[in-house]
Amino acid sequence: MQFKAPKGTRDFFPDDMVLRRWIMKQWDDVSLRNGFVEYDGPIFEDLDLYRVKSGDEIVDQLFHFTDRGGRGLAIRPEMTPTLARMIAVRANALPKPIKWYSQPRLCRAERPQRGRLREFFQWNVDIIGESSEIADAECIFVLIDFMRKVGLSPEHVEVKLNSRAIVSALLDAAQISIQQQSAVYAALDKRDKLSAEAFEALLAKIDLNTSQKNILAQFADACDADGLDRIAEFLRESSVATEGCDAVRRVLDLLDAFGVGGYCRFDMGVVRGLAYYTGIVFEAFGKGGLKRAVGGGGRYDRLIEDMGGPTIGAVGFATSDVVLADLLNEFDRLPSQECELDFFVIDADPSVFETVLHVTASLRERGMSAVFSYQRQGVGKQFKQAAAKNANRVVIVEADIASTRKISVKDMAHSKQATLELDAFLADPMQQIE
Amino acid sequence: MQFKAPKGTRDFFPDDMVLRRWIMKQWDDVSLRNGFVEYDGPIFEDLDLYRVKSGDEIVDQLFHFTDRGGRGLAIRPEMTPTLARMIAVRANALPKPIKWYSQPRLCRAERPQRGRLREFFQWNVDIIGESSEIADAECIFVLIDFMRKVGLSPEHVEVKLNSRAIVSALLDAAQISIQQQSAVYAALDKRDKLSAEAFEALLAKIDLNTSQKNILAQFADACDADGLDRIAEFLRESSVATEGCDAVRRVLDLLDAFGVGGYCRFDMGVVRGLAYYTGIVFEAFGKGGLKRAVGGGGRYDRLIEDMGGPTIGAVGFATSDVVLADLLNEFDRLPSQECELDFFVIDADPSVFETVLHVTASLRERGMSAVFSYQRQGVGKQFKQAAAKNANRVVIVEADIASTRKISVKDMAHSKQATLELDAFLADPMQQIE
Repeated sequence: MQFKAPKGTRDFFPDDMVLRRWIMKQWDDVSLRNGFVEYDGPIFEDLDLYRVKSGDEIVDQLFHFTDRGGRGLAIRPEMTPTLARMIAVRANALPKPIKWYSQPRLCRAERPQRGRLREFFQWNVDIIGESSEIADAECIFVLIDFMRKVGLSPEHVEVKLNSRAIVSALLDAAQISIQQQSAVYAALDKRDKLSAEAFEALLAKIDLNTSQKNILAQFADACDADGLDRIAEFLRESSVATEGCDAVRRVLDLLDAFGVGGYCRFDMGVVRGLAYYTGIVFEAFGKGGLKRAVGGGGRYDRLIEDMGGPTIGAVGFATSDVVLADLLNEFDRLPSQECELDFFVIDADPSVFETVLHVTASLRERGMSAVFSYQRQGVGKQFKQAAAKNANRVVIVEADIASTRKISVKDMAHSKQATLELDAFLADPMQQIE
Repeated sequence: MQFKAPKGTRDFFPDDMVLRRWIMKQWDDVSLRNGFVEYDGPIFEDLDLYRVKSGDEIVDQLFHFTDRGGRGLAIRPEMTPTLARMIAVRANALPKPIKWYSQPRLCRAERPQRGRLREFFQWNVDIIGESSEIADAECIFVLIDFMRKVGLSPEHVEVKLNSRAIVSALLDAAQISIQQQSAVYAALDKRDKLSAEAFEALLAKIDLNTSQKNILAQFADACDADGLDRIAEFLRESSVATEGCDAVRRVLDLLDAFGVGGYCRFDMGVVRGLAYYTGIVFEAFGKGGLKRAVGGGGRYDRLIEDMGGPTIGAVGFATSDVVLADLLNEFDRLPSQECELDFFVIDADPSVFETVLHVTASLRERGMSAVFSYQRQGVGKQFKQAAAKNANRVVIVEADIASTRKISVKDMAHSKQATLELDAFLADPMQQIE
């Protein structure tokens, strides 16, 4: 009987794993250098944890089950509920700002498609306990710091910012009812994936009058500083909107001071689907052929309170290994995947095999990677194995090792070879070979 | 509404996470230096993958569910079926020996108890495609290499070896029927956790005659080389047993050559519960108060064929973060968990805050970890924050930075301070401070 990986999931053969580990190492490095510490939670949570935040309709998108005690459980589809739950417990004890990151494995019971699998890894970065725009700006900086580190410039990727305050003030100004707003949010969120006609058609389904449609048509695709000024002027009567516009300007100024302003601009098209955002929202976009969000987030100042914690400001973003691998691949920024091996230890005669084991074990104990042939065979065949494994150096244990106490070491890259005292070699295995 | 982590699972707050990452880094380091490459599979698999190997009774111990297409799925309770499935696909294409490791998150729907949680991480190490005892010995060496690396000597931990061939030959010699053998295996497996009386009671439940009980009583607790000789002598008519005894001796000799013989001995008490082992079996035991297996494995030469792959020899072991943390804690081998920070950047005046952001971003770009205060406040308070974060160095941006282009750097550990050109500092942030 032969089995395959379940639909929408991936097997990570060693080559795939090198790539996944490389991406996650960049997440680690960037998080740590920005002063974040790592956390994690269980792979499954109480089903109610997701219901509280997203309602019953979320259940269909989850892999859920009951344990023997009849508790409803679900494999985590996102990390923020877990984060909010954990923060709710310790929020008062932790020094602020709380700067946490995570690299969760997540599962969603959705139809697999390009860039969307049923199982994937996310990088989650959150700053909790700070309400000022410094936190929003630092959060966005971290995402851009990653892009810079992996070699993506403003030519390859941009970060679009908006504020939920501006969007809701605009919908209020257009007198769009609360009942219609969620449908309009959803339409705006899809705006940049649709043609003008398709966007019109989507709006037509929401029962809007001509004046309402005109306002949306006028401002829905506003972007950059001019567009922001136009909206601020149109909404100048609304203190909520004015504050929202000022917040976006302050975040952009801070990102300039961080030296990454060139990646960023205002864009009214960024709305973010999730219900819990309350302020600044942002998305990173690949500028190549993929034309897709490759990460995003925003401010969610009420979620932790909803999870039983204190009232505390929070901002964060997420991105996934799947979309990032596509993006990096498009711009040829994936690393080469050669495995390296420090030493391959060869016997010149089967009688000295025990010394091969001794030398190998000693090298490993000193932190070097070292292997040997499982087959007792000729030196030439063993050298071939060493080359196939990309060994940097080959150690040859000669048949007369017991009397000479000497071994030969060959530097494979430079084709240099030397005969060394065994003990001196083991004391300093990477010594220069003349 | 307040939520907790589900029963039997753990939240990893940053301190817990440092510990988990440290353990997993040892797994990585030891695997790589022994010439293994990493793989992984999905967190859930076809339910049938586990049924094929372990029968329907396994289903109760799994967290299982169906997707919208009605497929039965289960969160993985162990890694070997996934490994066997993946190897079955590529076995013919991969050069031998295949030396793979993994660090899977696993879940089991069992009653949580000390050292056993519903969710945990395992280190899986397997060598596939080599039938000789070299593979068994190298596999065991890897487990001991880990123990050595984390500071555990033969005083703290030992590895007990046996062979399934010896056990089954002994049960055959005692004329214990196939039907009774699995109950006897289970009893032997629990032997070292039970008093002599409790073991007797367990055997009494299996309908054995006096002669059968005597044979078990005589050999069940045989250990070390003498015990092995006694069993070999008793079973000298059985070629299977003789081969099994020779295999155990060869593995012990190879482990001597590897330099770790001091950790290892034969022990008839090691049986291993899992049905799929076919040859050498082994367990690592903590010698302290815990008296518990902290890792184990063996040879399973038929499993990959059962999963639709070729007939191919395989040997492997697993251990978990939970038991290893207990073991390391008992012998005080856990690392201290101080987070370190390279730089904390302070403004001497709020007017130079933008320079603080510029300096911080530049340090991060050079790979240094660097943070700053979100609050504009006095230098003394910012220094307190820097100390609370264990910053190695503090950078002070003075109010006159625009005219001087100089900053002050303080080495916190050595209480040394210097004034440096900003550009020279950024070009070499870790330069010696006199």
